[in-house]
Amino acid sequence: MRQPGQSREGVRPVAQEAPGPVPGVVLPPRLLPGQMKAEVVRLLQSRGVTLEAIAQVVLAVQGHYFVNLTLEECLLAVEAVVEKREVQHAVLTGAALDMLAEQRRLPEPLGAILRADDGLYGVDEVMALAVTNIYGSIGLTNFGYLDKEKLGIIGELNRRKGGQVHTFLDDLVAAIAAAAAARIAHQRAGGG
Amino acid sequence: MRQPGQSREGVRPVAQEAPGPVPGVVLPPRLLPGQMKAEVVRLLQSRGVTLEAIAQVVLAVQGHYFVNLTLEECLLAVEAVVEKREVQHAVLTGAALDMLAEQRRLPEPLGAILRADDGLYGVDEVMALAVTNIYGSIGLTNFGYLDKEKLGIIGELNRRKGGQVHTFLDDLVAAIAAAAAARIAHQRAGGG
Amino acid sequence: MRQPGQSREGVRPVAQEAPGPVPGVVLPPRLLPGQMKAEVVRLLQSRGVTLEAIAQVVLAVQGHYFVNLTLEECLLAVEAVVEKREVQHAVLTGAALDMLAEQRRLPEPLGAILRADDGLYGVDEVMALAVTNIYGSIGLTNFGYLDKEKLGIIGELNRRKGGQVHTFLDDLVAAIAAAAAARIAHQRAGGG
Amino acid sequence: MRQPGQSREGVRPVAQEAPGPVPGVVLPPRLLPGQMKAEVVRLLQSRGVTLEAIAQVVLAVQGHYFVNLTLEECLLAVEAVVEKREVQHAVLTGAALDMLAEQRRLPEPLGAILRADDGLYGVDEVMALAVTNIYGSIGLTNFGYLDKEKLGIIGELNRRKGGQVHTFLDDLVAAIAAAAAARIAHQRAGGG
Repeated sequence: MRQPGQSREGVRPVAQEAPGPVPGVVLPPRLLPGQMKAEVVRLLQSRGVTLEAIAQVVLAVQGHYFVNLTLEECLLAVEAVVEKREVQHAVLTGAALDMLAEQRRLPEPLGAILRADDGLYGVDEVMALAVTNIYGSIGLTNFGYLDKEKLGIIGELNRRKGGQVHTFLDDLVAAIAAAAAARIAHQRAGGG
Repeated sequence: MRQPGQSREGVRPVAQEAPGPVPGVVLPPRLLPGQMKAEVVRLLQSRGVTLEAIAQVVLAVQGHYFVNLTLEECLLAVEAVVEKREVQHAVLTGAALDMLAEQRRLPEPLGAILRADDGLYGVDEVMALAVTNIYGSIGLTNFGYLDKEKLGIIGELNRRKGGQVHTFLDDLVAAIAAAAAARIAHQRAGGG
Repeated sequence: MRQPGQSREGVRPVAQEAPGPVPGVVLPPRLLPGQMKAEVVRLLQSRGVTLEAIAQVVLAVQGHYFVNLTLEECLLAVEAVVEKREVQHAVLTGAALDMLAEQRRLPEPLGAILRADDGLYGVDEVMALAVTNIYGSIGLTNFGYLDKEKLGIIGELNRRKGGQVHTFLDDLVAAIAAAAAARIAHQRAGGG
Repeated sequence: MRQPGQSREGVRPVAQEAPGPVPGVVLPPRLLPGQMKAEVVRLLQSRGVTLEAIAQVVLAVQGHYFVNLTLEECLLAVEAVVEKREVQHAVLTGAALDMLAEQRRLPEPLGAILRADDGLYGVDEVMALAVTNIYGSIGLTNFGYLDKEKLGIIGELNRRKGGQVHTFLDDLVAAIAAAAAARIAHQRAGGG
C-alpha cells in the first residue's frame, strides 16, 4: 500500500487541499462517501443481498440479549456499517472475485479454488475479519457463529446452485451482521 | 467472553432496560464513558505519557503527507482514539501487566518475560493491533514503523531504566498514534 | 516490544551465539521449549482444564467433517498447538489476569470488568485470535462457534461459581480447540 | 467459507479418505503441495519477484540482530514461508487482483482504486497481515517497517511505471519477508 495521502509518484497530494488539478499528479478517482455507499448497496442487491435481509440476521442473533430490539434498529446499524470505507472496499473486492470466478475470468488455480469454495482457502475469512472488527473485537464471536450456522440470507447464499459463486460474499455478509451486532451492543451500553 | 449484554448467570440483562436493581443479577460496575476516558488519561500520565506527547508522534509521522497538519489537529485525533472503549480496555490491561511485572507481583515465568521485554513475546503486539485497527487496517503500516523507529515518547518509554517496565505501553502508545494517523487520513479524504 | 534478539540495552545478544555470559547483558530467563510446555499444561490443569478435555471439544466440532477422526488424533493436534510459543505466551498472560482478578489484586476498574466478564471487554477475544490463527485463518469460524456454543469444558469454565474468574481462559480454550481443528483440516488435505 | 472438509452440497467429503470418485461430490481440484509452491514461485517471478530478492530484504532487516545471519539462511526461511498454504492463497489472490487491474478487467470503481493504489484502501494490508502472522504476531513490526521504508524489491515494485499495478504484491512481499524474519527469530531462540 501507498501511505494514506501519498500519491503514486511520492508527491504530496496537495491537490486534495488546493483547488484545481496539479499537473503530473494522478489522484484516485475517489467517489464521494454517499456515492460509494449507493454503489455498494447496488452491488449487494445485484448479488441477491438486501440490507433488510442482513438486518434480519442481526435481529436473530442479538434479539436474545436485547429483548426490545427491533428490525428497524438492526437496519440502522447495518446502514452505519455499510457507510464505513473499510467495509465498502472489502465488499467491492470480495464480490468482484466471486463474479470473476463465476465468469471463469480468474487465473487458475485460483478460479477453481473459489468455485469449489475450498475449506482450506482462508482469504475470505481474513477479509471478513477486517469488517467484523470495525466496532472492536467483540464482533468476532458472532461472526464465527454466523459463518458456521449460516442463518437466513447467509445460508441462502451458501446453497445457491447453477454456477453462482459466493465464496467471499457469504463471509462478508456474516461479518457485516456481526459488526452491526457489535455496534448495537456498544450503543445499548452507552458509548463507544 | 460472555456475549455482549449477557450477565454472569446467563440471565438476560433486563436491568439495562428497566429501572431499579434486579435481584440476583450482578451487572458490571461500568463507568460512564467520560469517567472511563478520564481514568485512562490519568493512568497514562501516571506512566509518564501525555496525550500531547502522543500527538507529537502523530505529527512527526503524518506531517510528511499533510503539509498543513497542526499539533492541535493531531491532539484532537488522539483524544478521539482514547474515547474508544476498545482502546480504553487495552490500555487498562496492558498498563496493569506492566505495573504488576515491575512490582514482581506476576506469576513466573510471565513476570520475567515481561521484565526482559522478550522479543519473542507477542501478546503486546496483538493487543496493540486491536487499537491500531479501530479506524481500519490502514493504521497497520504506521504502527509497525513507529514500533521499530520508536519516535518521541515511544523511544523514551523504551529507554527508561531503574526497574520500570513498559513492555505493553510502548506498543500501545505506538498503536494509539497509528490509529490517530489513520483517523486523520480518513477525515482529510472526507468520510470514513 | 523489543525486536526479536534485541536485549534490554540495545546491545546485540551475542550471548545467544557465544558460550559463557556476557557482562552487562541480561538475557531473558527463557525456559527450554519442553519446560515451557510442561509449565503451560500444569497451569491449565490448575485452572481445571486438561488437554483431553480440549481434545473432546475438537472431536465434537470436527467429527462432522471427518468421520474416522479419533480422540487420539485430536489430542495429538492439541499437543502440537500447545507446543507453539505464541500459544504458551497467551495462556500464561490470560490465566494470570484471571487469577489476579479472582484474588482482587488487579487495579480497578480492570478487576471489576474481568470479574463481571463484561461483554464489551474484547481483549480476551483479541488474545484468543492470535492463538486461533496459528494454522491460518480457517480457525476463525470454529473459534466463534465454540465461543458462543460453549461446548464441553468451555461451558464448564463459563458456568463455574464461587468467585472463580475465567474471562480469558474460556476464550483461550476455544481458540486452542479451533487451532487444533484447523491443523487437522490442513493435515487431512495433505500439507500446509 | 465452507467448513474445511465440507463439500459444496454439505455432503461429507468421504472421497478424501476413500479411493475413487464419489458420484455427485465435486471436490476442489487441489494441487499437490509441491505443485502449488512451484506455481506460486512461478507467479512471483512473472511479476518480477524472486525468492532471492525477498531473502535480501530479510537479511537487511534481521542482520542487525543476528550478526552471523547469511543470505542462505534467509532464503531457506523464505522458502519455508512460501510452502504455507495460507501464503500461497494470499499470493494467488493478490497477484490476480493486481493483474486484472492492470488489464482493466476489474469492475469499477475497484479497478481505479487499485490502479491508483489509494492510500485509504486497506484490503491489501489485511491480506498481508494473514501472511505476516504465520509465525506469530512478532512479524507485525517488521511488516509495518518494510511497508513504509520499502527496502529492496519492495521499493522496486512500488516505483514501477508503465501501467504496472503492484498494490497487493508490494504488501505481500513485505509480509513474506516479515514472516521469514519471525521464523528466523523463533529458530535462533530454539523452538517455536
